[in-house]
Amino acid sequence: MEKIEDYIELVKETIKFLREGKVVVCSIDKNNKPNLMTIGWGSIGIVWGEPVFIIFIRPSRYTYELIEQTGDFTLNVFDDKYKDIINYCGTVSGRNIDKFKETKLTPLKSKYVRSPLVEESIISYECKVIGKIDIKPEMIAKEIKEKIYKSGDYHRLYIGKILTCYKKTILDI
Amino acid sequence: MEKIEDYIELVKETIKFLREGKVVVCSIDKNNKPNLMTIGWGSIGIVWGEPVFIIFIRPSRYTYELIEQTGDFTLNVFDDKYKDIINYCGTVSGRNIDKFKETKLTPLKSKYVRSPLVEESIISYECKVIGKIDIKPEMIAKEIKEKIYKSGDYHRLYIGKILTCYKKTILDI
Repeated sequence: MEKIEDYIELVKETIKFLREGKVVVCSIDKNNKPNLMTIGWGSIGIVWGEPVFIIFIRPSRYTYELIEQTGDFTLNVFDDKYKDIINYCGTVSGRNIDKFKETKLTPLKSKYVRSPLVEESIISYECKVIGKIDIKPEMIAKEIKEKIYKSGDYHRLYIGKILTCYKKTILDI
Repeated sequence: MEKIEDYIELVKETIKFLREGKVVVCSIDKNNKPNLMTIGWGSIGIVWGEPVFIIFIRPSRYTYELIEQTGDFTLNVFDDKYKDIINYCGTVSGRNIDKFKETKLTPLKSKYVRSPLVEESIISYECKVIGKIDIKPEMIAKEIKEKIYKSGDYHRLYIGKILTCYKKTILDI
Protein backbone atom coordinates (compact mmCIF):
# COMPACT_ATOMS: atom_id res chain seq x y z
CA MET A 1 0.00 0.00 0.00
CA GLU A 2 1.29 3.41 -0.93
CA LYS A 3 0.62 6.39 1.32
CA ILE A 4 -1.37 9.09 -0.52
CA GLU A 5 -0.50 12.62 0.58
CA ASP A 6 -3.79 14.22 -0.43
CA TYR A 7 -7.06 12.31 0.09
CA ILE A 8 -8.59 14.33 -2.73
CA GLU A 9 -6.85 11.94 -5.15
CA LEU A 10 -9.04 9.12 -3.80
CA VAL A 11 -12.48 10.73 -3.38
CA LYS A 12 -13.95 9.91 -6.79
CA GLU A 13 -12.99 6.24 -6.64
CA THR A 14 -14.05 5.97 -2.99
CA ILE A 15 -17.54 7.39 -3.58
CA LYS A 16 -17.94 5.15 -6.62
CA PHE A 17 -17.14 2.04 -4.56
CA LEU A 18 -19.12 3.31 -1.57
CA ARG A 19 -22.36 3.51 -3.52
CA GLU A 20 -21.72 0.00 -4.78
CA GLY A 21 -21.53 -1.09 -1.13
CA LYS A 22 -17.86 -2.03 -1.30
CA VAL A 23 -16.49 -0.11 1.67
CA VAL A 24 -15.86 -1.92 4.95
CA VAL A 25 -15.45 -0.24 8.35
CA CYS A 26 -12.87 -1.91 10.56
CA SER A 27 -12.96 -1.34 14.33
CA ILE A 28 -11.44 -3.16 17.32
CA ASP A 29 -12.65 -4.33 20.73
CA LYS A 30 -10.92 -3.95 24.11
CA ASN A 31 -9.29 -7.37 23.76
CA ASN A 32 -7.79 -6.29 20.43
CA LYS A 33 -10.12 -8.44 18.36
CA PRO A 34 -10.91 -6.50 15.17
CA ASN A 35 -14.31 -6.51 13.45
CA LEU A 36 -15.58 -5.66 9.95
CA MET A 37 -18.84 -4.07 8.80
CA THR A 38 -19.83 -3.25 5.23
CA ILE A 39 -21.36 0.19 4.58
CA GLY A 40 -23.01 1.79 1.59
CA TRP A 41 -23.50 5.27 3.00
CA GLY A 42 -21.09 7.99 4.03
CA SER A 43 -19.64 11.28 2.86
CA ILE A 44 -16.25 12.85 2.34
CA GLY A 45 -15.25 16.47 2.64
CA ILE A 46 -14.00 19.17 4.97
CA VAL A 47 -15.50 19.89 8.38
CA TRP A 48 -14.06 22.29 10.99
CA GLY A 49 -11.12 22.77 8.63
CA GLU A 50 -10.23 19.07 8.71
CA PRO A 51 -10.40 16.38 6.01
CA VAL A 52 -13.21 14.06 7.08
CA PHE A 53 -15.04 10.87 6.30
CA ILE A 54 -18.50 10.81 7.89
CA ILE A 55 -20.03 7.38 8.51
CA PHE A 56 -23.55 6.48 9.66
CA ILE A 57 -23.81 3.68 12.26
CA ARG A 58 -26.96 2.39 13.99
CA PRO A 59 -26.72 1.98 17.80
CA SER A 60 -27.77 -1.67 17.48
CA ARG A 61 -24.59 -2.53 15.58
CA TYR A 62 -21.55 -4.11 17.20
CA THR A 63 -19.39 -1.58 15.30
CA TYR A 64 -21.17 1.19 17.25
CA GLU A 65 -20.08 -0.37 20.55
CA LEU A 66 -16.48 -0.63 19.35
CA ILE A 67 -16.19 2.89 17.94
CA GLU A 68 -17.71 4.23 21.18
CA GLN A 69 -14.89 2.49 23.08
CA THR A 70 -11.89 3.37 20.90
CA GLY A 71 -12.95 6.58 19.11
CA ASP A 72 -11.40 5.45 15.85
CA PHE A 73 -12.00 3.32 12.77
CA THR A 74 -10.52 2.53 9.38
CA LEU A 75 -12.28 2.43 6.02
CA ASN A 76 -11.29 -0.18 3.49
CA VAL A 77 -12.37 -0.21 -0.14
CA PHE A 78 -12.56 -3.54 -1.97
CA ASP A 79 -12.80 -4.41 -5.62
CA ASP A 80 -15.15 -6.92 -7.26
CA LYS A 81 -12.97 -9.91 -6.43
CA TYR A 82 -14.14 -9.61 -2.81
CA LYS A 83 -17.85 -9.27 -3.59
CA ASP A 84 -18.95 -12.33 -1.58
CA ILE A 85 -16.79 -11.45 1.39
CA ILE A 86 -18.14 -7.89 1.44
CA ASN A 87 -21.71 -9.16 1.35
CA TYR A 88 -20.92 -11.53 4.20
CA CYS A 89 -19.46 -8.70 6.31
CA GLY A 90 -22.70 -6.77 5.88
CA THR A 91 -25.03 -9.55 6.97
CA VAL A 92 -23.58 -11.15 10.11
CA SER A 93 -22.70 -9.58 13.47
CA GLY A 94 -19.20 -9.51 14.93
CA ARG A 95 -20.77 -10.14 18.35
CA ASN A 96 -20.93 -13.83 17.51
CA ILE A 97 -18.48 -14.26 14.66
CA ASP A 98 -14.80 -13.54 14.08
CA LYS A 99 -15.15 -12.06 10.60
CA PHE A 100 -11.41 -11.86 9.92
CA LYS A 101 -11.11 -15.57 10.65
CA GLU A 102 -14.18 -16.47 8.58
CA THR A 103 -13.22 -14.34 5.56
CA LYS A 104 -9.47 -15.00 5.77
CA LEU A 105 -8.87 -11.27 5.35
CA THR A 106 -5.67 -9.93 6.93
CA PRO A 107 -5.61 -7.20 9.60
CA LEU A 108 -2.73 -4.79 9.12
CA LYS A 109 -1.40 -2.52 11.89
CA SER A 110 -2.47 1.10 11.40
CA LYS A 111 -0.06 3.96 11.79
CA TYR A 112 -2.16 6.36 13.90
CA VAL A 113 -5.21 4.49 15.21
CA ARG A 114 -5.96 1.29 17.14
CA SER A 115 -8.37 -0.15 14.56
CA PRO A 116 -6.39 -2.09 11.95
CA LEU A 117 -6.45 -1.68 8.17
CA VAL A 118 -7.29 -4.59 5.88
CA GLU A 119 -4.39 -5.71 3.72
CA GLU A 120 -6.56 -6.87 0.80
CA SER A 121 -8.26 -3.47 0.29
CA ILE A 122 -7.36 -1.28 -2.70
CA ILE A 123 -7.88 2.04 -0.87
CA SER A 124 -7.94 2.66 2.86
CA TYR A 125 -8.25 5.47 5.41
CA GLU A 126 -7.29 5.79 9.09
CA CYS A 127 -9.86 7.95 10.92
CA LYS A 128 -10.12 9.42 14.41
CA VAL A 129 -13.58 10.46 15.65
CA ILE A 130 -13.66 14.24 16.26
CA GLY A 131 -17.42 14.56 16.52
CA LYS A 132 -20.63 12.53 16.77
CA ILE A 133 -24.11 13.67 15.81
CA ASP A 134 -27.37 11.80 16.39
CA ILE A 135 -30.19 11.76 13.87
CA LYS A 136 -33.52 12.74 15.41
CA PRO A 137 -36.84 11.43 14.01
CA GLU A 138 -38.46 14.85 13.81
CA MET A 139 -35.78 16.22 11.50
CA ILE A 140 -35.94 13.69 8.67
CA ALA A 141 -38.13 13.81 5.53
CA LYS A 142 -41.25 11.65 5.89
CA GLU A 143 -40.39 9.38 2.97
CA ILE A 144 -36.92 8.67 4.43
CA LYS A 145 -38.41 7.93 7.84
CA GLU A 146 -40.85 5.42 6.37
CA LYS A 147 -38.26 3.78 4.14
CA ILE A 148 -35.25 3.63 6.45
CA TYR A 149 -36.38 3.97 10.07
CA LYS A 150 -39.45 1.77 10.42
CA SER A 151 -37.81 0.09 13.41
CA GLY A 152 -36.33 3.31 14.84
CA ASP A 153 -32.65 2.69 15.56
CA TYR A 154 -31.66 6.11 14.21
CA HIS A 155 -28.06 6.41 13.03
CA ARG A 156 -25.25 8.15 14.84
CA LEU A 157 -22.94 10.08 12.53
CA TYR A 158 -19.26 9.68 13.28
CA ILE A 159 -17.18 12.51 11.91
CA GLY A 160 -13.83 10.85 11.35
CA LYS A 161 -10.78 13.02 10.74
CA ILE A 162 -8.74 11.39 7.98
CA LEU A 163 -5.28 10.97 9.52
CA THR A 164 -3.76 9.17 6.57
CA CYS A 165 -4.84 7.19 3.52
CA TYR A 166 -3.40 4.60 1.18
CA LYS A 167 -3.83 3.14 -2.26
CA LYS A 168 -2.69 -0.19 -3.64
CA THR A 169 -0.13 0.23 -6.39
CA ILE A 170 0.89 -2.09 -9.20
CA LEU A 171 3.75 -3.22 -6.96
CA ASP A 172 1.30 -4.56 -4.36
CA ILE A 173 -0.67 -6.76 -6.74
CA MET B 1 -23.85 25.13 -18.30
CA GLU B 2 -23.96 21.48 -19.24
CA LYS B 3 -26.02 19.04 -17.19
CA ILE B 4 -23.82 16.29 -15.68
CA GLU B 5 -25.60 12.94 -15.38
CA ASP B 6 -23.43 11.57 -12.58
CA TYR B 7 -22.27 13.90 -9.77
CA ILE B 8 -19.30 11.59 -9.19
CA GLU B 9 -17.63 13.31 -12.16
CA LEU B 10 -17.57 16.55 -10.15
CA VAL B 11 -16.63 15.44 -6.62
CA LYS B 12 -12.87 15.81 -6.83
CA GLU B 13 -13.00 19.31 -8.29
CA THR B 14 -15.78 20.34 -5.90
CA ILE B 15 -13.92 19.24 -2.75
CA LYS B 16 -10.76 20.95 -4.04
CA PHE B 17 -12.60 24.27 -4.46
CA LEU B 18 -14.58 23.78 -1.23
CA ARG B 19 -11.45 23.59 0.89
CA GLU B 20 -10.20 26.72 -0.82
CA GLY B 21 -13.44 28.41 0.33
CA LYS B 22 -14.76 28.90 -3.20
CA VAL B 23 -18.22 27.39 -2.86
CA VAL B 24 -21.23 29.66 -2.41
CA VAL B 25 -24.64 28.57 -1.09
CA CYS B 26 -27.54 30.30 -2.78
CA SER B 27 -30.95 30.42 -1.05
CA ILE B 28 -34.07 32.56 -1.50
CA ASP B 29 -36.47 34.44 0.77
CA LYS B 30 -40.27 34.45 0.68
CA ASN B 31 -40.29 37.56 -1.52
CA ASN B 32 -38.08 35.76 -4.05
CA LYS B 33 -34.99 37.75 -3.19
CA PRO B 34 -32.00 35.39 -3.45
CA ASN B 35 -29.01 35.46 -1.13
CA LEU B 36 -25.41 34.17 -1.26
CA MET B 37 -23.16 32.78 1.47
CA THR B 38 -19.62 31.45 1.03
CA ILE B 39 -18.78 28.15 2.73
CA GLY B 40 -15.55 26.24 3.27
CA TRP B 41 -17.00 23.13 4.90
CA GLY B 42 -19.26 20.39 3.66
CA SER B 43 -19.20 16.82 2.45
CA ILE B 44 -20.36 14.80 -0.53
CA GLY B 45 -21.47 11.20 -0.65
CA ILE B 46 -24.41 8.82 -0.34
CA VAL B 47 -26.90 8.89 2.53
CA TRP B 48 -30.12 6.85 2.72
CA GLY B 49 -29.33 5.63 -0.77
CA GLU B 50 -29.37 9.17 -2.18
CA PRO B 51 -26.58 11.33 -3.62
CA VAL B 52 -26.06 14.11 -1.09
CA PHE B 53 -24.22 17.30 -0.33
CA ILE B 54 -24.14 18.03 3.41
CA ILE B 55 -23.66 21.65 4.43
CA PHE B 56 -23.06 23.14 7.89
CA ILE B 57 -24.97 26.36 8.69
CA ARG B 58 -25.01 28.27 11.98
CA PRO B 59 -28.49 29.31 13.26
CA SER B 60 -27.34 32.95 13.44
CA ARG B 61 -26.91 33.09 9.64
CA TYR B 62 -29.49 34.61 7.32
CA THR B 63 -29.02 31.56 5.05
CA TYR B 64 -30.29 29.37 7.93
CA GLU B 65 -33.53 31.37 8.03
CA LEU B 66 -34.00 31.00 4.28
CA ILE B 67 -33.25 27.27 4.06
CA GLU B 68 -35.64 26.71 6.99
CA GLN B 69 -38.36 28.43 4.93
CA THR B 70 -37.82 26.84 1.52
CA GLY B 71 -36.11 23.51 2.29
CA ASP B 72 -33.73 23.87 -0.63
CA PHE B 73 -30.47 25.48 -1.73
CA THR B 74 -28.00 25.50 -4.58
CA LEU B 75 -24.22 25.19 -4.40
CA ASN B 76 -22.10 27.18 -6.77
CA VAL B 77 -18.38 26.69 -7.30
CA PHE B 78 -16.29 29.64 -8.46
CA ASP B 79 -12.82 29.91 -9.89
CA ASP B 80 -10.06 32.32 -8.91
CA LYS B 81 -11.39 35.16 -11.04
CA TYR B 82 -14.18 35.64 -8.48
CA LYS B 83 -11.92 35.58 -5.40
CA ASP B 84 -12.89 39.05 -4.15
CA ILE B 85 -16.58 38.46 -4.71
CA ILE B 86 -16.44 35.12 -2.85
CA ASN B 87 -14.68 36.77 0.09
CA TYR B 88 -17.30 39.51 0.12
CA CYS B 89 -20.14 36.95 0.17
CA GLY B 90 -18.59 35.35 3.24
CA THR B 91 -18.23 38.50 5.27
CA VAL B 92 -21.48 40.47 4.98
CA SER B 93 -25.03 39.43 5.85
CA GLY B 94 -27.87 39.20 3.35
CA ARG B 95 -30.17 40.60 6.03
CA ASN B 96 -28.93 44.08 5.19
CA ILE B 97 -27.42 43.74 1.75
CA ASP B 98 -28.57 42.50 -1.66
CA LYS B 99 -25.46 40.49 -2.51
CA PHE B 100 -26.49 39.76 -6.09
CA LYS B 101 -26.85 43.49 -6.71
CA GLU B 102 -23.57 44.34 -4.98
CA THR B 103 -21.53 41.62 -6.71
CA LYS B 104 -23.27 41.91 -10.10
CA LEU B 105 -23.57 38.09 -10.15
CA THR B 106 -26.52 36.71 -12.13
CA PRO B 107 -29.24 34.50 -10.61
CA LEU B 108 -30.33 31.73 -12.96
CA LYS B 109 -33.63 29.85 -12.62
CA SER B 110 -33.12 26.34 -11.20
CA LYS B 111 -34.85 23.35 -12.72
CA TYR B 112 -36.08 21.62 -9.54
CA VAL B 113 -35.72 24.01 -6.59
CA ARG B 114 -36.77 27.55 -5.68
CA SER B 115 -33.27 28.77 -4.86
CA PRO B 116 -31.57 30.00 -8.04
CA LEU B 117 -28.21 28.94 -9.47
CA VAL B 118 -25.47 31.48 -10.16
CA GLU B 119 -24.66 31.89 -13.82
CA GLU B 120 -20.99 32.73 -13.30
CA SER B 121 -20.17 29.50 -11.38
CA ILE B 122 -18.13 26.74 -13.01
CA ILE B 123 -19.92 23.86 -11.22
CA SER B 124 -23.31 23.93 -9.54
CA TYR B 125 -25.75 21.68 -7.71
CA GLU B 126 -29.50 21.90 -7.02
CA CYS B 127 -30.28 20.38 -3.59
CA LYS B 128 -33.44 19.60 -1.65
CA VAL B 129 -33.17 19.18 2.12
CA ILE B 130 -34.10 15.60 3.11
CA GLY B 131 -32.73 15.76 6.64
CA LYS B 132 -31.35 18.14 9.25
CA ILE B 133 -29.12 17.26 12.18
CA ASP B 134 -28.03 19.56 15.01
CA ILE B 135 -24.55 19.46 16.48
CA LYS B 136 -24.59 19.13 20.28
CA PRO B 137 -21.76 20.55 22.44
CA GLU B 138 -21.25 17.33 24.41
CA MET B 139 -20.51 15.29 21.30
CA ILE B 140 -17.63 17.29 19.85
CA ALA B 141 -13.89 16.88 20.54
CA LYS B 142 -12.62 19.40 23.11
CA GLU B 143 -10.12 21.02 20.74
CA ILE B 144 -12.85 21.58 18.10
CA LYS B 145 -15.18 23.08 20.70
CA GLU B 146 -12.52 25.52 21.84
CA LYS B 147 -11.46 26.47 18.33
CA ILE B 148 -14.83 26.67 16.55
CA TYR B 149 -17.62 27.10 19.11
CA LYS B 150 -16.35 29.67 21.61
CA SER B 151 -19.55 31.65 21.07
CA GLY B 152 -21.83 28.58 20.91
CA ASP B 153 -23.98 28.91 17.78
CA TYR B 154 -23.60 25.20 16.94
CA HIS B 155 -24.13 24.31 13.29
CA ARG B 156 -27.16 22.62 11.83
CA LEU B 157 -26.29 20.06 9.15
CA TYR B 158 -28.51 20.16 6.10
CA ILE B 159 -28.49 16.91 4.18
CA GLY B 160 -29.25 18.07 0.65
CA LYS B 161 -30.26 15.50 -1.94
CA ILE B 162 -28.50 16.39 -5.19
CA LEU B 163 -31.32 16.67 -7.72
CA THR B 164 -29.14 17.75 -10.62
CA CYS B 165 -25.72 19.26 -11.25
CA TYR B 166 -23.96 21.23 -13.94
CA LYS B 167 -20.53 22.08 -15.22
CA LYS B 168 -19.42 24.96 -17.41
CA THR B 169 -18.09 23.80 -20.74
CA ILE B 170 -15.74 25.47 -23.21
CA LEU B 171 -18.85 26.65 -25.06
CA ASP B 172 -19.99 28.68 -22.05
CA ILE B 173 -16.77 30.62 -21.63
